Amino acid sequence: MATPVKVYGPAMSTAVSRVLACLLEKNVDFQLVPVNLSKGEQKKPDFRKIQPFSQVPAFEDEGICLFESRAICRYICEKYTDKGNKGLYGTNPVARASIDQWLEAEGQSFNPPSSVLVFQLAFAPRMKIKQDQVVIKQNEEKLSKVLGIYEKRLGETRFLAGDEFSLADLSHLPNTQYLVTTSGRGELFTSRKNVGRWWNEISSRDSWKKVVDMQNKGA
Amino acid sequence: MATPVKVYGPAMSTAVSRVLACLLEKNVDFQLVPVNLSKGEQKKPDFRKIQPFSQVPAFEDEGICLFESRAICRYICEKYTDKGNKGLYGTNPVARASIDQWLEAEGQSFNPPSSVLVFQLAFAPRMKIKQDQVVIKQNEEKLSKVLGIYEKRLGETRFLAGDEFSLADLSHLPNTQYLVTTSGRGELFTSRKNVGRWWNEISSRDSWKKVVDMQNKGA
Ligand SMILES: N[C@@H](CCC(=O)N[C@@H](CS)C(=O)NCC(=O)O)C(=O)O
Ligand SMILES: N[C@@H](CCC(=O)N[C@@H](CS)C(=O)NCC(=O)O)C(=O)O
Repeated sequence: MATPVKVYGPAMSTAVSRVLACLLEKNVDFQLVPVNLSKGEQKKPDFRKIQPFSQVPAFEDEGICLFESRAICRYICEKYTDKGNKGLYGTNPVARASIDQWLEAEGQSFNPPSSVLVFQLAFAPRMKIKQDQVVIKQNEEKLSKVLGIYEKRLGETRFLAGDEFSLADLSHLPNTQYLVTTSGRGELFTSRKNVGRWWNEISSRDSWKKVVDMQNKGA
Repeated sequence: MATPVKVYGPAMSTAVSRVLACLLEKNVDFQLVPVNLSKGEQKKPDFRKIQPFSQVPAFEDEGICLFESRAICRYICEKYTDKGNKGLYGTNPVARASIDQWLEAEGQSFNPPSSVLVFQLAFAPRMKIKQDQVVIKQNEEKLSKVLGIYEKRLGETRFLAGDEFSLADLSHLPNTQYLVTTSGRGELFTSRKNVGRWWNEISSRDSWKKVVDMQNKGA
């Protein structure tokens, strides 16, 4: 049997859970290697060798080490083309270009405000850090604009990159999960007809339900 | 003769110039379609149809419309595999994974602080907008950390993703050009031995010199 790929970091980290969702969609066995962020383990020299930015996730597969969650997801889709969900990263250049486009929109436009909100609304209270209401308001406005654009797009196509679920949709799951379930900001999504429909659909996939399960079990 | 691809937006825009550098490396003919940002042309309904975020660049090639500069670059490399620089996006899955990794590092870690600095130091003065010294200082510190990581990496490999020039290096050209030449922040790069060597090498490529030429001519 092949050695399972390794993912370093806790499932409750948004960037780690992006990679886990991709591995589960692609039906690729993996081993989750704990990295205790509150103890600063991501800053240890040994970890830095595989993740020079001292962040999770890091990824290992047959001697290949990678970091950056979205690059890891692309690699998993390329390497395991024939496993699991075969259309996750497109099956032709035009489909792939559309996926790359919306995956970049996630990384460049959706992630910056939504990850600030996840930190402020979901993590700061647990870590007993004072919330910054000005920062929250500014980023809610930024995210609202992005979701307005998504609302229009999702009125034309079932998923962001077209009529199939793809890496572009998957990449939105981690931040949205926290915003909808633990931050009281679910309305940003559910008050929008198409975005709400999309969120229901993508978050009820088996792959994502398994990730949420791992998060709830404290993995 | 094939119709040249179209790039919408001014060459002086960093995201537009990323796409131009890629087209020149790949030796693909293009036509630059003006979009006057100071007149708000990026917000017009017709432009929004191809770029829903109302930003430049937008890209058109044989009926395919795309936005997001890094996604456009990936598409150009895929579609025009056999033209120009054939290794720009790697010639095997492992090389490509390393390029994707460092291209993501650019988009996620280098671009956020460096684009704030480009705006504050190069554009704000021209637009007669007051500079925010606190923001400048914070982002210089963030960028410094990133460049510290690059310094170490570039002591091990000639370019970011390995020993060949790639899309990952190319993607750093637009912001760095402004920081080195018009913002008085060149030392951030040139004071670091390996980063300085790398910058000299990547910025003296013919493709990039042509882009700078277009910028200087006000294209
Ligand atoms: N762009 C990176 C971001 C990684 C990231 O922000 N990781 C966070 C957890 S979600 C982290 O490691 N935080 C701990 C730290 O920065 O010390 C990716 O997508 O992989
Ligand atoms: N993530 C986008 C960023 C595009 C972007 O920021 N474009 C700027 C110029 S560099 C723009 O259009 N600014 C005008 C505006 O936002 O109104 C990409 O890489 O294409």
